[in-house]
Amino acid sequence: MSATATAHRVFNFSAGPAALPLPVLQQVQEEVLCYPGAGASVMELSHRGKVFVEIAEDAEATLRRLLGISDDYAVLFLQGGAVLQFSMIPANLLRGSGKTAQYLVTGSWSTKAIKEAQKEGDVSIAYSGKESNFNHVPPSGDYSVPDDAAYLYYCSNETIQGVQFGSEPQCPASVPLVCDSSSDFLSRPLAVDKYGILYACAQKNAGPAGVTVVVIRKDLIERGSDSLPGYLNYKNHAEANSMWNTPPTFAIYVLGKVAHWLADDIGGLAAMEKANREKAGLLYDIIDANPGFYTGHAKADCRSQMNVTFNLPSDELQAKFISEAAEHDLDSLKGHRSVGGIRASIYNAMPREGVETLASFMKDFVSKNG
Amino acid sequence: MSATATAHRVFNFSAGPAALPLPVLQQVQEEVLCYPGAGASVMELSHRGKVFVEIAEDAEATLRRLLGISDDYAVLFLQGGAVLQFSMIPANLLRGSGKTAQYLVTGSWSTKAIKEAQKEGDVSIAYSGKESNFNHVPPSGDYSVPDDAAYLYYCSNETIQGVQFGSEPQCPASVPLVCDSSSDFLSRPLAVDKYGILYACAQKNAGPAGVTVVVIRKDLIERGSDSLPGYLNYKNHAEANSMWNTPPTFAIYVLGKVAHWLADDIGGLAAMEKANREKAGLLYDIIDANPGFYTGHAKADCRSQMNVTFNLPSDELQAKFISEAAEHDLDSLKGHRSVGGIRASIYNAMPREGVETLASFMKDFVSKNG
Repeated sequence: MSATATAHRVFNFSAGPAALPLPVLQQVQEEVLCYPGAGASVMELSHRGKVFVEIAEDAEATLRRLLGISDDYAVLFLQGGAVLQFSMIPANLLRGSGKTAQYLVTGSWSTKAIKEAQKEGDVSIAYSGKESNFNHVPPSGDYSVPDDAAYLYYCSNETIQGVQFGSEPQCPASVPLVCDSSSDFLSRPLAVDKYGILYACAQKNAGPAGVTVVVIRKDLIERGSDSLPGYLNYKNHAEANSMWNTPPTFAIYVLGKVAHWLADDIGGLAAMEKANREKAGLLYDIIDANPGFYTGHAKADCRSQMNVTFNLPSDELQAKFISEAAEHDLDSLKGHRSVGGIRASIYNAMPREGVETLASFMKDFVSKNG
Repeated sequence: MSATATAHRVFNFSAGPAALPLPVLQQVQEEVLCYPGAGASVMELSHRGKVFVEIAEDAEATLRRLLGISDDYAVLFLQGGAVLQFSMIPANLLRGSGKTAQYLVTGSWSTKAIKEAQKEGDVSIAYSGKESNFNHVPPSGDYSVPDDAAYLYYCSNETIQGVQFGSEPQCPASVPLVCDSSSDFLSRPLAVDKYGILYACAQKNAGPAGVTVVVIRKDLIERGSDSLPGYLNYKNHAEANSMWNTPPTFAIYVLGKVAHWLADDIGGLAAMEKANREKAGLLYDIIDANPGFYTGHAKADCRSQMNVTFNLPSDELQAKFISEAAEHDLDSLKGHRSVGGIRASIYNAMPREGVETLASFMKDFVSKNG
């Protein structure tokens, strides 16, 4: 890799699509004209051909290894993003069940999810953080879930508000736990056997936009009615190993490379979690040290390790912060249009050096403007 | 581009995902670490950021220019492939309409499409080629469509059978014409204003798997009910310029490059059609010259310019053909598992040299085995 080709890369704090590991991009660059042994780009390969089937199987196997996913679960590679899962989950598990689905509403994404679920059947809000502007997730005991619920749905990390569940919420054993893990997937080890469905669009932590990983307990796959639009029925995808129709082949290929980077270069999810906690700590320490200047959005015990959200004393200072940060190659720090402020998304692929540079900039900025 | 990087590329006759233009892949390779001016890979860019919005707008503008798409139409970039369109079209245009949708069933893809439509409302088969094993498309006059149909659906090119409509089927002016153009999109000029919906998954002629282009007349966008799963409602995507949720950014980027290649390098769709007709002619001429050995599947006046399908006298000879072809770098010639035989997919990006090499091999093979 020539120095010139990488020299002008910035530190990209985008919330998603987001930074990818540089070694992954370098491998993609090497292989993009000719995947080894294939005589063609991965983009050009039949999804049913031997070479691509091996790529997809390897991506799945690497995810299974990283997360310790047992044979009780299928791993699906789907299109349509988290938003299509907002509909597919209730279409398969709620519609016609006679049951009620329970939702923990902790930010923008779970709010969107419940709106789609309401089209499919009875839905109940087990907990909502709306009144406190979604600055926390509920402690166990602050809500209850009936034993006969269709499922309990939550979003493990709310990208926009920057609040994250430290561990799985309490849930009766009889109720499938369903998790939108889009923005903290693969950032830490998980006890997958606690979940009914664990899903994540790839473009935060796991790969490029266009593929969504759905880890689904096999007994739940059968619940979808044959009257569902075919693409929305998990059964179709599971029976065909995600090849019911042409899958997003290139996105799966990159996702597989990211999984290998985690397993082989980083050393697995426990090591990744340690690095992520350290990175987040660098920024939260500065926020805590300057309480009159940087105001964190999330309550301290609910802070996201992935999306660090905070406000400055004025809109003018926020604009100045973003503009001066960009001069230091610190990019995409503007908060989501629905919340405002500053958001530093520091997913797996954000190098520690980028976070250190931001931390240093934040210290300098407060000393000059505080 | 070094010679070694391209030296071992084969001629890839895959039906999809399929060959992409080499200049497009070379540009992707150059930009994959750093899109010019962005400091990051296109895969890493926020879909709402200035750089990617310009990429998406340019892709749309180039498609509009190539096909002459007027402002009466929206151009959407969606996920889920043609298969999700099989459901979205009737979900938006048929469900609750009190009307009947009419289908021309001319091969495997229109057969799949009608099955999904039957879940959404009343469907009628205006024409079926099933009894003749889908070896033709209907001549005008062989079917009729009521003036009050919800829409008339057809597939302009059946990839598996290798039959293609030479022009749009007759359709009353009051009835929206809906076309699955997945495997001949951008292969020739089209009169877009004849269509209600013209759609294509990208992975045959227009780009990598993972993005589907939907060209939809604006009055049809409003027909979807708010009770539809949000992703399935065209309105959501149209109002948000395909950014209702995160679109498949990298696939859109490559699709834009393919569109530029067509416009700038090839000289537009009329020039592309001329080249495609010449390529197909090279193969059909050999089939016609050896009627006892090569048996074309499609009737001569319905032959696809994209997928040349034919059988050899025995399974043994077919296996030998495929195996020896591979030794000449002629790859992925095996027919679809549901039809068998040989299929040479010669989309836009298949260079004439590849078709000439195949033609030469076919001549040689018949002389040795005929």
